[in-house]
Parts: sequence; structure tokens; C-alpha cells
Amino acid sequence: MPSPAGNPEDFRTIWLKPDDPSIVELVDQRVLPHEYRILSLEHWQDGAEAIVDMAVRGAPLIGATAAWSLYLAALKGDEPTDAVAQAAAALLETRPTAVNLRWAVERITRLIGAAPAGSELAQLIRSDAEAICAEDIAICEGIGRHGLALIRNLHEARPDRPVNILTHCNAGALATINWGTATAPIYFAHREGIPVHVWVDETRPRNQGSQLTAWELARNRVPHTLVVDNAGGHLMQHGEVDIVITGTDRTTRSGDVANKIGTYLKALAARDNDIPFYVGLPSTTIDWRIADGVREIPIEQRDPAEVTDVYGVSGERTLYVRTTAETTPVANYAFDVTPARLVTGLITERGICDASEEGLAQLFPEFAVGRR
Amino acid sequence: MPSPAGNPEDFRTIWLKPDDPSIVELVDQRVLPHEYRILSLEHWQDGAEAIVDMAVRGAPLIGATAAWSLYLAALKGDEPTDAVAQAAAALLETRPTAVNLRWAVERITRLIGAAPAGSELAQLIRSDAEAICAEDIAICEGIGRHGLALIRNLHEARPDRPVNILTHCNAGALATINWGTATAPIYFAHREGIPVHVWVDETRPRNQGSQLTAWELARNRVPHTLVVDNAGGHLMQHGEVDIVITGTDRTTRSGDVANKIGTYLKALAARDNDIPFYVGLPSTTIDWRIADGVREIPIEQRDPAEVTDVYGVSGERTLYVRTTAETTPVANYAFDVTPARLVTGLITERGICDASEEGLAQLFPEFAVGRR
Repeated sequence: MPSPAGNPEDFRTIWLKPDDPSIVELVDQRVLPHEYRILSLEHWQDGAEAIVDMAVRGAPLIGATAAWSLYLAALKGDEPTDAVAQAAAALLETRPTAVNLRWAVERITRLIGAAPAGSELAQLIRSDAEAICAEDIAICEGIGRHGLALIRNLHEARPDRPVNILTHCNAGALATINWGTATAPIYFAHREGIPVHVWVDETRPRNQGSQLTAWELARNRVPHTLVVDNAGGHLMQHGEVDIVITGTDRTTRSGDVANKIGTYLKALAARDNDIPFYVGLPSTTIDWRIADGVREIPIEQRDPAEVTDVYGVSGERTLYVRTTAETTPVANYAFDVTPARLVTGLITERGICDASEEGLAQLFPEFAVGRR
Repeated sequence: MPSPAGNPEDFRTIWLKPDDPSIVELVDQRVLPHEYRILSLEHWQDGAEAIVDMAVRGAPLIGATAAWSLYLAALKGDEPTDAVAQAAAALLETRPTAVNLRWAVERITRLIGAAPAGSELAQLIRSDAEAICAEDIAICEGIGRHGLALIRNLHEARPDRPVNILTHCNAGALATINWGTATAPIYFAHREGIPVHVWVDETRPRNQGSQLTAWELARNRVPHTLVVDNAGGHLMQHGEVDIVITGTDRTTRSGDVANKIGTYLKALAARDNDIPFYVGLPSTTIDWRIADGVREIPIEQRDPAEVTDVYGVSGERTLYVRTTAETTPVANYAFDVTPARLVTGLITERGICDASEEGLAQLFPEFAVGRR
């Protein structure tokens, strides 16, 4: 059963079990929306498995899960230092391209390296895992606060109807600790009483929109309607979309945005219909080394089964069905790149800027200067 | 089991049973690609049911199915004239918006009205149903012949690799009697030995791409790869698409194209990447009364279950699974309109023309003049 609806403030994707701090718990995203299941991690291997099996996904949440897994390694390993080193190496292999995973593992490895002899390793890591989660929440809250201003302006310009927001994939609370990146402005607007309505792209092939974004919007009582990925252009042609907000997996220093496949098509439709297209992102996803996203960002090809096999429920049973003939050849590109010229602005934890080298450099001078 | 691969020339969607001309047979499209099942129509009601249940779909095929149903009514009704009148009225109700359905029913009704007393009604209608099918094949062959020239030019410009063609939905042999509209140029090029490769859009919500287009391309041995609807923009950015060819449900006299939802997004991506975007159409789908497609063509909203419930196979069993939470609100727009400015050209049975009032008027002066 899905969890009962609640206030966005109270939501978490991962936490330490209240009555037993030797266990980490998380929301198992493989069975949403058909089931709300809590997964218990007792050993670091459970965390690695949760990442590999995609019980958790979303860069910030993967990073946090890795941090909590290292805590479990230190807590339960006979030789805490060795156990953490072993766990760190194994965790890095779970999703080799996940930037936040490496970042979290390296942060904790450095922390341990700098700890005075005789430190209680597990407690040290626990504090840092808690800090990583708190920082992520603060970042998402920053994105929410800045993005809220955009939605408020749209509402004031046309107060007679809800602000219609289209989003693609799940850059939501479920991809982070809470609030999400693309969704944070939406939750903040909703909490402030601004009437919003979200068009949720189904998001083939993995259906993160219909299975995750729709679930969390319902849980947080935000009005929404699911549409197929094909529908956004039609909605925009007919004035049914006031703003598009998506997340990003990686952003170049020039403002090109790599995100879930199909994002580029929505950006094209937004431009063709003069609709603002914004991207919510923590600055940690900016890749300051890269300028040309289309040429320089390698696009992962994933398992064709993600396209051919669809997860759902039939009667009481959840299962995968194959929608295609067994022999149909399939290509499964995970991401596409939306060129900066199609992006109206980037909503970061520090504020909103143009999707350009100058725009990003103004908000993040410390990175921009160092890389030029 | 799917039918064995064969030559495109030998394919048919509907036919009179060879050893028993009192029965009409057709390919049941509801169970493709998991099963190749022939449906037998013994009475006109079976034909009406096949249309309602979408065992057949595609405007030309619906028209032909109606014609053959009227033949069955005349053949098996105690009072052939009354039976045909009753069947005609009922058939018109099956899919009220299907242009070819009305056209076929009215054509046969006129034929009967003009027949000399004492005519063998069933044989009269049989001949006309056969003529309707033959004419549709001739129209598709015309589209194939003209579109072939486009593909041949692309091949000659770059002979070192297959011509990559992207198509959306199924405007294929399965939507007509044979050859299809968007697919006819592809089959003609393939038959001529030009190396082609087709990117098949999955085509949510009904999956006509993954379940029908992929099936018929495989049956006709045309190389192809299935991708999700989200992927086309990425493929075009990376030079993997040489031409887009889609079908259309309705085209305005100014060249605006109403087609399966999502077509507009592919047209935007094609323009952004300087890739030609063509539409294959029989001139019967041109609506000479309408000029502004986005404003004037009403877009049908269909059953949300088409979005939430996905058809597939699990083990030996075919079934529908619900992919979403039971309570998720859904909107299901069936079509969108691609403005003529994004369409490189229209491939008709008479030739290729600009997607404009002037272009269409040059090819079809008899309609254009009459309507101005």
C-alpha cells in the first residue's frame, strides 16, 4: 500500500531506524507506486545492492546511500578501517558514472584519513552521513526558494488559474533526501498556497514520471495529471503549460544540460511556444571541465529490457510484461543533451542564472575562475 | 506465433477467404506482435465489432473493413437491401470520426442506389470492395514510388551507409491494405536494394510502433531498431537520422498535419538539426475546408486506460498490466498538429509537394479551386 498522504516537510528517502541505530532504512523505489516498502540495510552490502538494483536512484540519494553504507561497514566490521576501505572500493563499482557516489565515498575516506588515532570510526561516519543528508536538504531548499519566485511571478501575472508546470522524469524528493531539485520550487509554491498543477511526463523507458513523480506529488497532495512523453508539445501549443522545470544529471560550464532522454524535445517545444524552460540543479552537478555538451558528454546506452519490459500490476500481482516481439532490435539511450540556447535559466541553490558561461561564473566565481 | 517473414508484395491486411467467399478474413491487430491471429468475419456485425474493438485500425483499412462488412450484409441478409441499410447505419456509428469509414459506406450506398433492379447486390458490393482495396494499394504504391526518389537521393549522397529513416506510430501496411503510407517509400527502397534502416518510435500510449511497425518491418525483412519516443532528438543531434517520414490522420489545405501525438516534437527536432521531415498521405486525408490545423482540428481525448494499462506477454500469457497507481489522474490526447512550416514536403500519390496551399493546389487543382 502507498504511504498515506503527508506534508512535504515530513518526507525522507533514507534514515537511521529510530529505535535501532544499527539499521538504515530507505524507501524501495523498485516497487512504487504499487507498494510502499521500506528496505532495511543491516550491512554495507545491503546498501551496495540497493544501489545496483536501483532500489535507490537519483544522484544525491545514491551518494547518501553510499555514505550510510560506509557507516554500516564501520559499525559492523571486525576491523572497521579495513571494512570501510573494502566497502568504499565496492561501492564505487556499483554505478561507475554516478558523480555524487564518488564524491560521498571520497569525502568520507578523507574524513577517516584525517581522524585522530582512536576515533570512534562509526560515529564519525554517522555524523558525516547525517551532514551529507542535511546539506542535500539545504541545497534543495535553496533551489526551492529561488524557483518559488518564478512560480509566484507566473501566478501574479495570471491569478485566475493554477500555474501549469510540466516536468520530465523524476528530479523529485525521491531522487534526493527530500524536496528534489526540479520539484522543490513546486512544493514550495504549493506550501505557500499558490495554486499549481503539474503535467507529469510518463518518462519512458523507466516510467519514473508515472511511477515516481506522480506518486510523490500525490503523497504531498500536489494536483497533477499524467501524460505520455509525446503530449507536451500539444499542451504547449494550446497554452496549457506556463513553465517547464526539469532536473539534470550533468550540466556543462556553458549551461548545456544532460538529462533524461526526451528533455531536449520538451525544450524545443517550449522555445517554439515561447514558454520558459528552467532546470533545477545543485551546483555539484556542474561539470566545469566541459563546454560542449552535445559533443563531449558520453551518452550511456542501457539494457534494452528497460524498453521492452514494463513493470505493472495485474490483479494482486506485480510483474514485468514484454511489450515487443522477442526478436525486436532495441536501442536504449539514457540521456540527451539540451543545448544552453534552449534553456531560459538554471535554478541553483545560490540563485537563478542564465544558462551560459557568464551566468554560471557570476554565481560560482570560485569554480569558474579556477578552470579557465 | 508471428507469421513467417515474407515478401512485402504478398502481404494483405484483409481478404476474402480463398476457399469460401462467404467469409472475410483479416489480421487481428490486437494481439500483435505476440500472436499472428486471423479473424474470420461471417456476418457484418463481426466487421463492426472488429472496427469497434480495434482489431483493425488505420483509416484506409477501416474503410475497407466497412465495405467488406456491407458485402456480408448483402450476402447473408434475408432482405439484402434492408440488411445493407441497417449495416451501413451501424457501421457509421463504430468510429464516428473516421473519414474513410464514411466515405466507403457512402460510396457503396450510392452504388446500390444506382444499380439496376434485379442486380445481384452481394456481387455488386463484392466487386466494389475489391476495387476499394485495389485503389488503396494503388495509392500507397504511388506514395511509395514518389517517396522512393527521396530515399534514393539520400543514398546516392552518402552511399557508404544505410539511409536512416525515423518514423512515428504505424502508418504502415497494417493501417492500409498493403504498403502503408509512411512505410511505402521504405518498402520500395528496400525492394530496390537500397540499404535502409528504420528507427521505430515506440509510440505511446498505444505502442503502435513497438507492436505494429516493428512487427511488419520484421515480417518484410527491413532492418530496424526500436527506440522510445523520447530518443529521436538525441539521434538527430548525432547524425543518426537522414529523414523523418510519418503518416497523417488529417492534413489541412495549408499543409498542417494532424497525426499521432508526438509527431510535432519530432518535426521540431528535425528542423533544429536540418533533417528533412516528410509526411506520406493519400489525398483523401486532405481536409480542404480547413487552413489552420492547430486552431481548427479538434483533438480527441481517449480513454486514460490507454496510458495506464500496457499490453504485453509474461511467460505464455498475454495480458494488460497497470503501470500507475490506481488513483493517478491521466489525460490522453490522441493527436497533435505539426504546423506546415516544420514540414519539408508532402508525399502524395500524385507526387511530392510543398506543405502549403500553393503546393497542394498545384497537385490537386480540382479541389483547391473549388474550395477557394
